[in-house]
Amino acid sequence: MSVSEIELIQNLTRDIVFKKGPLKIGVGDDCSVIRTKDKDILVSCDSLIENVHFKKEWASWEVWGKKAAGAALSDIAAMGGKPVYAWCHLGFPPSFSASSTLSFYKGLKKIFKNFDVVLAGGNICHASSFTSNLTVWGEAPHNQFLTRSGAKAGDKVYIFGNIGYASLGLQILKKKWKHRSVKKFTRAFFYPKPHIDFGRYLAKNKKASSCIDVSDGLWQDLNHIAHASKVRIILEGHKIPLAKDFQKWGQRLKVDPLKLVLTGGEDYALAYTSSASTFGPWTKNITEIGSVEKGAPGVQVIDPQGKALKLSTHGFQYKIKK
Amino acid sequence: MSVSEIELIQNLTRDIVFKKGPLKIGVGDDCSVIRTKDKDILVSCDSLIENVHFKKEWASWEVWGKKAAGAALSDIAAMGGKPVYAWCHLGFPPSFSASSTLSFYKGLKKIFKNFDVVLAGGNICHASSFTSNLTVWGEAPHNQFLTRSGAKAGDKVYIFGNIGYASLGLQILKKKWKHRSVKKFTRAFFYPKPHIDFGRYLAKNKKASSCIDVSDGLWQDLNHIAHASKVRIILEGHKIPLAKDFQKWGQRLKVDPLKLVLTGGEDYALAYTSSASTFGPWTKNITEIGSVEKGAPGVQVIDPQGKALKLSTHGFQYKIKK
Repeated sequence: MSVSEIELIQNLTRDIVFKKGPLKIGVGDDCSVIRTKDKDILVSCDSLIENVHFKKEWASWEVWGKKAAGAALSDIAAMGGKPVYAWCHLGFPPSFSASSTLSFYKGLKKIFKNFDVVLAGGNICHASSFTSNLTVWGEAPHNQFLTRSGAKAGDKVYIFGNIGYASLGLQILKKKWKHRSVKKFTRAFFYPKPHIDFGRYLAKNKKASSCIDVSDGLWQDLNHIAHASKVRIILEGHKIPLAKDFQKWGQRLKVDPLKLVLTGGEDYALAYTSSASTFGPWTKNITEIGSVEKGAPGVQVIDPQGKALKLSTHGFQYKIKK
Repeated sequence: MSVSEIELIQNLTRDIVFKKGPLKIGVGDDCSVIRTKDKDILVSCDSLIENVHFKKEWASWEVWGKKAAGAALSDIAAMGGKPVYAWCHLGFPPSFSASSTLSFYKGLKKIFKNFDVVLAGGNICHASSFTSNLTVWGEAPHNQFLTRSGAKAGDKVYIFGNIGYASLGLQILKKKWKHRSVKKFTRAFFYPKPHIDFGRYLAKNKKASSCIDVSDGLWQDLNHIAHASKVRIILEGHKIPLAKDFQKWGQRLKVDPLKLVLTGGEDYALAYTSSASTFGPWTKNITEIGSVEKGAPGVQVIDPQGKALKLSTHGFQYKIKK
């Protein structure tokens, strides 16, 4: 018997207060939001664990530091905040060398420096395998942040940033394929891009009714929006922009490209809903991929003829023993 | 070849900004301190890892949840803050059951509830062994917090709370001894007490020049104060209050009680320096154990005749491969 990650989280958080005084958003969004007199503070948590999220032989420890930092900052991007501070919990086995730890930190600090984020603390201890847990503190003016819960019937669904690249890259790394033309996919897996500027643009200009970063697969992440907003999302599968030669590599991997995009994680594109159709200087980088309707919360994927598609796997979820 | 935990942390944080604008305290104290318009925010990180910090067969998962929460809140106590929010990063192996996770969370939430702390978020994922990383947000009025760095020559060193109980408890758990009279020691290991009220008393009344919670052994933790404050601490070993029958159990365990107290961790007593000699209603629970002098930063343990004692092991530190 097993339960899904979502069911377990629902059970764990059943009796938790979600809003209380300055806590404007608690468990259940990309970040918690705490109001102070001068601004709203956005706090998020993200983990990167050896043999769960990556195999160390795929790249250097500096690369894994960069991946951990990029992915952690993406949660702040999804809420439209500016990341400011970070804390790093680091666990590693006794056999792990100090130089590997320093290399991981080097990668971490490079990405943080790029985004003007200060490493404000953390701790290190032994663990049975390499574990990095980052907590990030972001900031936004009062009420100038995005959530998962504001999508409205009539809104369109948009996507910003590459999608499918990292999941294809992960498959390629697992197969140990090396080829010049696959580098853009493996690089997407190694170096996730947190779309901080675009997230802030959406939040500042009130251009999105809801937003999420695609970390667990587009299907599951849009489902989070659908349930939080209590709406039905119609996703036009054929409109999702695929990388050049995505089809070719998908065929070699014997995977359906659409399914890979819908269920593969770690792309960190921003998926959002909006009643607007232009997004200033960003307009050309954005693709409309669906619409929001009234109805039972959920995501329906349709083909160009409007026919519903069925999916067997719905994203990246851990199965947990009962 | 190996380096110590302290050397590694020094290397990791060599190029990090410690203070910058609202970041009043960065890496290197029990908490980071970030100033907002209305108050100072104290942020701390703490880990509890199976087979590193505990063996699961020693107690139920609910007990480990309580231990994780108590230890994490203690960092806020050491800085004199009031804990308000917490985030939990949880990792567990695929074989781990949902009911164990729920039991861990139950323990966590009970302690948080006792201290009016709201679980504001977190994440769960698979890991090779059970790992809990807690981030805690505490609050204090502006400048009303304690640090490690204010000890002054002429101050006395004080201790508040049980000391040695948890380290003795850990030794007893390892030996699998069961006896009614050892329960107070094993309980101290299971249920660390964060001394929030006393920490706040010290901070509010400016009664301490420096403070730390004893998590890595009294010797090492006082060394942290000595180095951060650039002072010499003279510790009168014989003045450290030992539990009734501590001597007896120490003998059975074949350990020197003083050495156990100086080098054993996880007691979470508060050790602090002060120029005051009374501490309001708390006075009767406090013991003077040493004094602060000018001199090369460090801790010197002396016997009743003022003769220096030598220690071979200096506290709980991880050894890390070069």
